[in-house]
Amino acid sequence: MRVLFIGDVVGNMGVHMIESYLPKLKQEIKPQVTVVNGENATSMGRGITLSIYKRMMSAGVDVVTLGNHAWSNNEILDFIDDTKRLIRPYNFPKRTTPGKGYTMVNVNGSQLAVLNFQGRVFMDNLDDPFALADELVTEIHKTTNCIFMDFHAEATSEKLAIARYLDGKISAVVGTHTHVQTNDARILPQKTGFLTDAGMTGPADGMLGMKPESVINRFLNQRPARFEVLETGRGIISGCYIDIDSKTGHTTHIKTVMLSDDQIN
Amino acid sequence: MRVLFIGDVVGNMGVHMIESYLPKLKQEIKPQVTVVNGENATSMGRGITLSIYKRMMSAGVDVVTLGNHAWSNNEILDFIDDTKRLIRPYNFPKRTTPGKGYTMVNVNGSQLAVLNFQGRVFMDNLDDPFALADELVTEIHKTTNCIFMDFHAEATSEKLAIARYLDGKISAVVGTHTHVQTNDARILPQKTGFLTDAGMTGPADGMLGMKPESVINRFLNQRPARFEVLETGRGIISGCYIDIDSKTGHTTHIKTVMLSDDQIN
Amino acid sequence: MRVLFIGDVVGNMGVHMIESYLPKLKQEIKPQVTVVNGENATSMGRGITLSIYKRMMSAGVDVVTLGNHAWSNNEILDFIDDTKRLIRPYNFPKRTTPGKGYTMVNVNGSQLAVLNFQGRVFMDNLDDPFALADELVTEIHKTTNCIFMDFHAEATSEKLAIARYLDGKISAVVGTHTHVQTNDARILPQKTGFLTDAGMTGPADGMLGMKPESVINRFLNQRPARFEVLETGRGIISGCYIDIDSKTGHTTHIKTVMLSDDQIN
Amino acid sequence: MRVLFIGDVVGNMGVHMIESYLPKLKQEIKPQVTVVNGENATSMGRGITLSIYKRMMSAGVDVVTLGNHAWSNNEILDFIDDTKRLIRPYNFPKRTTPGKGYTMVNVNGSQLAVLNFQGRVFMDNLDDPFALADELVTEIHKTTNCIFMDFHAEATSEKLAIARYLDGKISAVVGTHTHVQTNDARILPQKTGFLTDAGMTGPADGMLGMKPESVINRFLNQRPARFEVLETGRGIISGCYIDIDSKTGHTTHIKTVMLSDDQIN
Ligand SMILES: [Fe+2]
Ligand SMILES: [Fe+2]
Ligand SMILES: [Fe+2]
Ligand SMILES: [Fe+2]
Ligand SMILES: [Fe+2]
Ligand SMILES: [Fe+2]
Ligand SMILES: [Fe+2]
Ligand SMILES: [Fe+2]
Repeated sequence: MRVLFIGDVVGNMGVHMIESYLPKLKQEIKPQVTVVNGENATSMGRGITLSIYKRMMSAGVDVVTLGNHAWSNNEILDFIDDTKRLIRPYNFPKRTTPGKGYTMVNVNGSQLAVLNFQGRVFMDNLDDPFALADELVTEIHKTTNCIFMDFHAEATSEKLAIARYLDGKISAVVGTHTHVQTNDARILPQKTGFLTDAGMTGPADGMLGMKPESVINRFLNQRPARFEVLETGRGIISGCYIDIDSKTGHTTHIKTVMLSDDQIN
Repeated sequence: MRVLFIGDVVGNMGVHMIESYLPKLKQEIKPQVTVVNGENATSMGRGITLSIYKRMMSAGVDVVTLGNHAWSNNEILDFIDDTKRLIRPYNFPKRTTPGKGYTMVNVNGSQLAVLNFQGRVFMDNLDDPFALADELVTEIHKTTNCIFMDFHAEATSEKLAIARYLDGKISAVVGTHTHVQTNDARILPQKTGFLTDAGMTGPADGMLGMKPESVINRFLNQRPARFEVLETGRGIISGCYIDIDSKTGHTTHIKTVMLSDDQIN
Repeated sequence: MRVLFIGDVVGNMGVHMIESYLPKLKQEIKPQVTVVNGENATSMGRGITLSIYKRMMSAGVDVVTLGNHAWSNNEILDFIDDTKRLIRPYNFPKRTTPGKGYTMVNVNGSQLAVLNFQGRVFMDNLDDPFALADELVTEIHKTTNCIFMDFHAEATSEKLAIARYLDGKISAVVGTHTHVQTNDARILPQKTGFLTDAGMTGPADGMLGMKPESVINRFLNQRPARFEVLETGRGIISGCYIDIDSKTGHTTHIKTVMLSDDQIN
Repeated sequence: MRVLFIGDVVGNMGVHMIESYLPKLKQEIKPQVTVVNGENATSMGRGITLSIYKRMMSAGVDVVTLGNHAWSNNEILDFIDDTKRLIRPYNFPKRTTPGKGYTMVNVNGSQLAVLNFQGRVFMDNLDDPFALADELVTEIHKTTNCIFMDFHAEATSEKLAIARYLDGKISAVVGTHTHVQTNDARILPQKTGFLTDAGMTGPADGMLGMKPESVINRFLNQRPARFEVLETGRGIISGCYIDIDSKTGHTTHIKTVMLSDDQIN
């Protein structure tokens, strides 16, 4: 089966890219499953709304993943328990976190488990992603070998470490969060597909999606600043696609995707 | 000369403690100079307003210092250049930061320099407090030997390190920011007075001044939370006083102060 | 029952303080149980050896707790599973960590559970101390109401948060790690005793036990440095004692202790 | 002029890649200047020796840059003041840091300034790279418009921010430190070339150059670990080349390079 993964969708332009260009991209790549990280999808660039989730599903997305910005729009607490295909990092505290950290997708009679986990290096104090992923993957193996993980993390070492740790037990690990696509898509020794970061989707000419001035000023003056999403210029859609052997769960092919809006039409 | 220093004033109750109890405390301790950290003085517990600054001055405060929350109420950008006795950490970026990082106070013909610096360990990326303090202290020595520093920092090691580094060159270093008074007031070998943290002023029964539930929930669920200042219960006023030899600038005595409102009346 | 707790023992001088002065201190305070944090007890100031553990037990210590430096002397991996009264933070990863995170002490027919946990703010990515402590305390309540916790943490907010979270469920929470004693020993509303930090035991004139030059130089030049334990000057012993009602587990009295060697003789 | 930049050289295999494959790569790319980041070049993967520096120069390197590991082999303190083309991050503390942070290279009568700076987000507390770079670039403009910067940093936001801040004032900013090449080489609006990270040079099959087991175990057990450089498997050489207009200093072309040893022969 072929899985298309799209990295952090930022702001109105990001959602617009999903609505306008994802259908064209799917026609070209022909994935069976499309997963999109939506942690920055509101017009503020932080969190997601129910309406945006629904627009993504209508545009052909099968699963929406999140990250450290999952709760930035706190309306999510009202709808996350009712949205079947919206998942948040599995390793938020078990006792206190609504929603779920993975979902199963039916693909022509096979099942694909889509997992969302978050790293801890330079990030929030979540539960141990290594121990929990190990446990969860063992459980999911009773149902399917096809397992895809969006690992939302800052440090390249933690991203590669979890992929190597799960190598052979999971189909693919694709990183998100840095908003910059890496050039290291590859298949690890035990056949797990890996990409350190998928990159972002939305305004191409900003600072990771934001207006440059506010971000630069934050560095220059070290005062708190509210970053605003850039609303002008070119759009970009970034991600990768992965071919998974439905029987073994092995990745047979992984390739990055990065297109600006003028390239897609 | 005797300097009274009061640690981080939090919220309405903190400002109320300054207005109601500081005059009584001053009658007892009889300081020539009173310095108060006001970085948490708004009703939100973050930043300061012009009106609060003025109320503090009317209540007998001579200098107000700040810290990492200096800019949380961004109206400060409008008035900090006009307030003679409101200082912010000296080591914010020189090119882009309004206001000033120290001020001189006349004490019966002697001058006391009051300095505000901020640490970097686990905090913002400010300029080097060690190098800048060294430079500034050398400059001030042309005018006076009496120099008091509010060092706003998280790590005990950085607080003690700057005090030992400046030992003999400065009259006293008193730490702020943790909101918990430490039990280590002492005079260092070269006669610099030192206290790791002065503690906070305001609601005694909260979590460093905030409502306990919101802070605890932040730890339990790892989601963003807006902390609210506690408005009920006892108030506390924390700080220390320091006797400085006006000639040598040496500290001859340093003692912590911590009183709840029922103790002061 | 009365529990004496002694904060981070640093280096040879720290161990010497335990051997020479703890017996005298115990004669004065008359605790039924003595707990000592030994995470810095080697001559390097990091970790503990089997021999030092045994010397502490011979000197009248009942339980030795640890912290982030638990594994700095990696010989501990050989002996921690055989040392009945040496505990390490409970919330290190369950699957991979030898030793145990709590122990039961018999006190005249009552049982005292001694727990060691570590914070996460500005520290290692351990498992959730709030969730795990809640679970463990519920389990221990089947046996006893008397529960003491050494919470090894950096941030004052996390220390107070766990104490408030466990208020009424546990007898006392005493913080360690900053090596500076705080001035806030008190009984929380539901009768849990609390002290943000117990302070350190060992060289009084250094930088948290270390030679000042190396620590100051680290701040001045930002290059890696090996800190060395100070071997000269006065020694200090810091901690607190707590009176616990054996039936209810409530703290009825808590008081800090801090003595330099000249004060004890 | 064409500049070839090679990202963090790790361990013996990394140095071997420079000696064996750099000459071939240069024949193909034909750069006038070759700059290599050598912060991980010792057999331990941390720091550099004089002998390795000399071997790099003999292999056709013109300038060696460093990063947070600059001082890991502390012999560098003995030779860095005598090595003309070994530079360390400019924004280490001015008063206490040996060596220099930039160097000038003669290229057919034009001058290229090669700068090394380090980021602060999630890293050491160095001096402000934005303020210092601005100042230094202004000074260098008196001599040349051709300025290349190796910006050694963790966070994608800081890397892009400094590049946007210097856009039009400097020829190119290339990031290092994450050891993973990014897929975003481009020319910014004011003609500054940019690449978030050049990637690493050395063992291709490890964890950013290190043996996977030790790194994974560090995540699993949260205990201190000494990472060892991987000495087997394929080697990789990563970087980029940049064409700079010698008159204007503008980048006219930037392209990533990543080759494993089997591809180069
Ligand atoms: Fe994101
Ligand atoms: Fe994120
Ligand atoms: Fe504060
Ligand atoms: Fe603060
Ligand atoms: Fe310690
Ligand atoms: Fe510690
Ligand atoms: Fe490196
Ligand atoms: Fe590095």
